[in-house]
Amino acid sequence: MKARIIITPKKAVLDPQGKTVQSALEHMGYRGVTGVHVGKYLEIDLAPDTDRETARQALNEAAHKFLSNPVIEDYRLEIE
Amino acid sequence: MKARIIITPKKAVLDPQGKTVQSALEHMGYRGVTGVHVGKYLEIDLAPDTDRETARQALNEAAHKFLSNPVIEDYRLEIE
Repeated sequence: MKARIIITPKKAVLDPQGKTVQSALEHMGYRGVTGVHVGKYLEIDLAPDTDRETARQALNEAAHKFLSNPVIEDYRLEIE
Repeated sequence: MKARIIITPKKAVLDPQGKTVQSALEHMGYRGVTGVHVGKYLEIDLAPDTDRETARQALNEAAHKFLSNPVIEDYRLEIE
């Protein structure tokens, strides 16, 4: 079983990494980009017998407490 | 239209960030985790009239040339 946590800067927060990638793409000669957001991606392998609800709770807690900064970042948790 | 690029360390490469997150989850008291991989996530907003094939080519080139390090990282490009 796998879980994914995707952490992105909130829309209202400056994203200098995103701006840098956007201008790099423009310098490459590609004009179709209107915005870039750069975030973190965590892929978490779970033991096969893991209880989905327990995993969801633990990972939500971890994402909120120390994986993301809730003041400036949003996160999304997916368990498959 | 949106594109996503997900960059993760190759499986054979040491991932100290992933190890740190894994041991943090264990310290939290959650034991179901068998591995963690930490990577980068890029969300790219494309102009609505963008040609999908051109975008795919440009973003593949960018991911290969400067967004990822192909020696130690894999990337995955999704356009929706």
